[in-house]
Amino acid sequence: MPFPTRPPRRGLAVLAGLAGCALCVAAGAAEGMWTLDHLPDEAMRARYGFAPEAAWVQRAMQASLRLSNGCSGSFVSADGLVLSNHHCVAACVEQLSAAGRDRLAEGFLARGRDAELRCPEIELLRLERITDVTPALRQATAGLEGPAYRAAQDAARARLTAECRGRDVETVQCELVTLYQGGAYQLYRYRRYADVRLVWAPEDAIAGFGGDPDNFNFPRYCLDAALLRAYEHGRPVAVREFLRVRPEGPQPGEPLFVTGHPGQTERLYTVAQLEAERERIGQLALPLLSEQRGLLLQYARGGEEPARVSATQLASVENTLKVLRGELQALADPALMAAKREDERALRDDVAQRAGASGEARDAWAQIERAQAVEAQLRLEYRLLERRAAFQSRYFEHARRLVRAAAERAKPDAERLREYSENELPQREQELRSAAPISPDLERTTLGWSLAKLREALGQDDPLVQQVLGRETPDALAARLVSATRLGDPAERLRLWQGGVAAVAASDDPFIALARQVDDAARAVRERFENEVQAVERKAQERIAAARFARTGTSAYPDATFTLRLSYGEVQGWTVRGRPVAPYTEVAGLYRRATGAEPFALPASWRDAQPRLDPAQRFNFVTTHDIAGGNSGSPMLDRAGRLVGLVFDGNLESLGGAYAYDERVNRAVAVHPGLILQALRSVYDAGFLADELGGRPQH
Amino acid sequence: MPFPTRPPRRGLAVLAGLAGCALCVAAGAAEGMWTLDHLPDEAMRARYGFAPEAAWVQRAMQASLRLSNGCSGSFVSADGLVLSNHHCVAACVEQLSAAGRDRLAEGFLARGRDAELRCPEIELLRLERITDVTPALRQATAGLEGPAYRAAQDAARARLTAECRGRDVETVQCELVTLYQGGAYQLYRYRRYADVRLVWAPEDAIAGFGGDPDNFNFPRYCLDAALLRAYEHGRPVAVREFLRVRPEGPQPGEPLFVTGHPGQTERLYTVAQLEAERERIGQLALPLLSEQRGLLLQYARGGEEPARVSATQLASVENTLKVLRGELQALADPALMAAKREDERALRDDVAQRAGASGEARDAWAQIERAQAVEAQLRLEYRLLERRAAFQSRYFEHARRLVRAAAERAKPDAERLREYSENELPQREQELRSAAPISPDLERTTLGWSLAKLREALGQDDPLVQQVLGRETPDALAARLVSATRLGDPAERLRLWQGGVAAVAASDDPFIALARQVDDAARAVRERFENEVQAVERKAQERIAAARFARTGTSAYPDATFTLRLSYGEVQGWTVRGRPVAPYTEVAGLYRRATGAEPFALPASWRDAQPRLDPAQRFNFVTTHDIAGGNSGSPMLDRAGRLVGLVFDGNLESLGGAYAYDERVNRAVAVHPGLILQALRSVYDAGFLADELGGRPQH
Repeated sequence: MPFPTRPPRRGLAVLAGLAGCALCVAAGAAEGMWTLDHLPDEAMRARYGFAPEAAWVQRAMQASLRLSNGCSGSFVSADGLVLSNHHCVAACVEQLSAAGRDRLAEGFLARGRDAELRCPEIELLRLERITDVTPALRQATAGLEGPAYRAAQDAARARLTAECRGRDVETVQCELVTLYQGGAYQLYRYRRYADVRLVWAPEDAIAGFGGDPDNFNFPRYCLDAALLRAYEHGRPVAVREFLRVRPEGPQPGEPLFVTGHPGQTERLYTVAQLEAERERIGQLALPLLSEQRGLLLQYARGGEEPARVSATQLASVENTLKVLRGELQALADPALMAAKREDERALRDDVAQRAGASGEARDAWAQIERAQAVEAQLRLEYRLLERRAAFQSRYFEHARRLVRAAAERAKPDAERLREYSENELPQREQELRSAAPISPDLERTTLGWSLAKLREALGQDDPLVQQVLGRETPDALAARLVSATRLGDPAERLRLWQGGVAAVAASDDPFIALARQVDDAARAVRERFENEVQAVERKAQERIAAARFARTGTSAYPDATFTLRLSYGEVQGWTVRGRPVAPYTEVAGLYRRATGAEPFALPASWRDAQPRLDPAQRFNFVTTHDIAGGNSGSPMLDRAGRLVGLVFDGNLESLGGAYAYDERVNRAVAVHPGLILQALRSVYDAGFLADELGGRPQH
Repeated sequence: MPFPTRPPRRGLAVLAGLAGCALCVAAGAAEGMWTLDHLPDEAMRARYGFAPEAAWVQRAMQASLRLSNGCSGSFVSADGLVLSNHHCVAACVEQLSAAGRDRLAEGFLARGRDAELRCPEIELLRLERITDVTPALRQATAGLEGPAYRAAQDAARARLTAECRGRDVETVQCELVTLYQGGAYQLYRYRRYADVRLVWAPEDAIAGFGGDPDNFNFPRYCLDAALLRAYEHGRPVAVREFLRVRPEGPQPGEPLFVTGHPGQTERLYTVAQLEAERERIGQLALPLLSEQRGLLLQYARGGEEPARVSATQLASVENTLKVLRGELQALADPALMAAKREDERALRDDVAQRAGASGEARDAWAQIERAQAVEAQLRLEYRLLERRAAFQSRYFEHARRLVRAAAERAKPDAERLREYSENELPQREQELRSAAPISPDLERTTLGWSLAKLREALGQDDPLVQQVLGRETPDALAARLVSATRLGDPAERLRLWQGGVAAVAASDDPFIALARQVDDAARAVRERFENEVQAVERKAQERIAAARFARTGTSAYPDATFTLRLSYGEVQGWTVRGRPVAPYTEVAGLYRRATGAEPFALPASWRDAQPRLDPAQRFNFVTTHDIAGGNSGSPMLDRAGRLVGLVFDGNLESLGGAYAYDERVNRAVAVHPGLILQALRSVYDAGFLADELGGRPQH
């Protein structure tokens, strides 16, 4: 288990460059998550004597996929076979399970196309076209500030994405991407695949071998791989560009390329933003998630069924916790913060001395600092009410979606909350139609707990708290809501979705009522957050980006935005407290590490298969690629464009990569392709899939 | 529930003064926790036209008590009746409960002396004499640094406390107190009362009305009071000096005095120490305790019995969490940190310019900064192994005590770990003899969880982790240890205590084995911590204190040390976000706030008593006193030395008091004495206790 599948945390993209390099030691460090239309050809050639050509890049782009749940993947056969990580599809596997049929534990294998099962919530997007729309955005927001700036940008976004998408909402999705912090705006047009089926998922025990203790650590032994298949009109999608597997995997020193979707980095946050981030993590996110972790750990001890229904949530919480701890550690690192301060000071000096720099540019840092003070005030309510930390319930999630969709769809497209724009509605409907089962018992548990957080944060005397809780305890309220709701039934949700405002208003479902009850407060804090924090930050960042451009030119990569990027690097170990960490593990090491006790217990299939497996077969390996959460499931390619690895994790040191890349210690962790093939053939008796993966279709 | 009963967190006492005042607005602010031999007479007279005379102080000292569990209290009758907080005796009430007899929920009232029940773990100490031993300490450590300095100080401590105590280990306890950061060393001689019995404890629902949501908040309605009685030779202790209650309580503006035992403040930490504290709390303590909280919350949902056995632990965790959050917020407050930086800069400038200042004094800050870097390295292991965060189990606590006592008692007194010195042994034995029941189910739960933390922190490849866990899961290991141990039986513990090294070595109890297994590692990290962090800090702080003395003189109070202090102040509300908070609550408000649902549900006794209670009777109130954790249960006295309040909490703003006092917002929260009397008479039908409290003994 590994890379966060959470979506980007805040809608900020920041031009990166110097701050990262301030911590680099080698010239030509493998730093950067590069957009595919703007690759560092010279740096790659200087380092490896090779840079991918246009055709290579085009093929890689067409074979690379984004998973709607925050992961990456790739097409690996002409019949729409998709390779990604097990942890990226674990929620689907759990949703396809039931009491007595725990497919996370047992694993899943479809021995024929008919047996492939649709994942209720996974969609795939394949990037098809990038169009620069910077002039249009500039024109739309010229001379505007604050709310007016934001409204104009939102309107332009809605118009441009609608034009890009046209009428084909089922198969096209468009996204306005803000790169270089407003230095560039681009329209990304995607091919959408909404019918995605599970083909193969190994047992959780081998996919996540070592569990939370080994997560983000190395040596590692995870078969964190799974196969999906894209369908259309009930048939597998015919794919022209897909990746062929190179079974022997990568050699140390050869140039390797990762194409995937890093979610978010904050490498050019100002110092004020970094300090606010530190408080946000340390004072709010980390304690809240830690408490939820404790709750879920104890819940899971309640028996097999509680353990099963809470497994994915627990894994996600534990994973995010490690990420946050890593980030907090980086933000508390005096060396990193000193480098950031120095970088900022140099840029501010430069701006102050530059004849042409406006007073506005000079004021940008102070504006951002003031915005952080507002953010600090709003932080708690924003997270509780708008981000639903106070309502940890899938029923509530559906109810919020229904209540808001009804209200938003009645508005012109440009005036809606962004996630209910026409462009985004198909995905909202897909979420609503999800057949994923909901555990009422787990719902009661997490909702009761999170409602108590609402009271704890706002106080018993807060009017909203009194309105929501009345004279009930949080647990009693949660139990009452869960027992009375009908939102567990997709048909009921669809009825409300299709019925719009009238149906939602007429509904007496208690979750619909709760969502309505808190909606004004949630929207109010979001409105303030977007106007007084985000819009101010964006405008000021745009000015800082311009100043940075003036100083360092455009030979830099933008911060991650959960859009397709290419990183380059190579297989290489690193050193922890003077102890070298070897870059590869082998099958033999797995059997040595297995204790028989969770999370180091092997599934029966692997215990049985030991005699059939090559002990020298490489298992996992580490590389110097600059990646981030969202890169999970990314293919790793060689110079011939063959698949030589499947990224599934980073090391603990890489978590500071949110703020800076350090080639000495940042490492990506990948599954060896030969291991996947060998496992399919010798553990799962699924040679037909190994053949398909190897480029030899079975029909 | 309220003030932390945790013991002082680190053995540092720091001379206080300027840093606090940097945030004060009014001259003569009621800042300071003053030692009773050194009161700010002039400041008090300037403010109130009154300062307590020597006889007043002597009486207050003889009536004030320290509870061994980290609280304060006072004698309130000639027959050894003791008033403290309910939350200070809750562990005792829980220990005197059993399945089907939940005295925390039901409350407890002894209708005669025979019915008073001994608290298994509570001891009382009454300060009898303060002796200055500064010259002896100076002489003992002259010219020494690091480990030698520490060893010499420990040896002097052992010798001086042994001399002070003499042979009467049962009734005398002595403590070497480091004040003014080594500016002064004093011997505190205490009268010890080891037989303490529970007389009255109201229902938890009224003592902690409002629960965690209202904790550290105001308005407030807590009858957080309880009565104990000190016994000797099976009879109540005859007390000469005790406090008489003034039923009408305090008026706004009149001078009030709190005598109690604030545990620890860090008002003169250097900036490096404050920053290290911030990381310690934010990265380590807060996430760890939050997770434990979530675990216990879910555990308590398992039914009445799990809720009962975990109540005290959960309350303590939640209380500490609020404290830590308040502290972290203060440490992240730019204004406070700027004031600290400015104060430090001024002092360092002063030292640099002072002709007589040695290079050593100038280097003190850098030494402390380097010690913090070592502390950061040791922090995690120190907390896990030595502070037992990895072994959250009362069985383990006993096992550690037995293993270490056996080893330490074989050494000369001066060479022992401090808590096993002759002076401290009676308390260790008392802890060991405790009849407090241990819940095997809760033990399994918390131990299994905390063993997983050990693995998480050190990694699966760590030799100690492999040694402790072997091939078992943390939960399986915990279950095996708990099912096999005999340490739940006080007789078995006493057998091992008396048997010493041989008995402990011969024991096959699995907790004894575990304690032995990890003892070397735990001692090693403690040794490094004490030598490379504490000793360095102490010596450097001594130098900084000297520099500060040279600048500001001795008209300052030392940081809190869990020894008897006097604070002065008055009844006064404060303002939260422009909204004034009134200083008193009344009985009528309690009935308005009661929703019937936890934690705002009244016990039956209070529902029934409503017609008999005066709705205008004051309930709780807030004052400007400068207090800290450990002050729980402190008496509040008027100028005539009568008891006019019972301190039980501070407001959220007061939690930053660890680092600075701000009279505008720091508030202490107290129970009104009239409420205690009225509750005893009209709710609990215990007029005989109200009479005894009022100074009219019943026999």
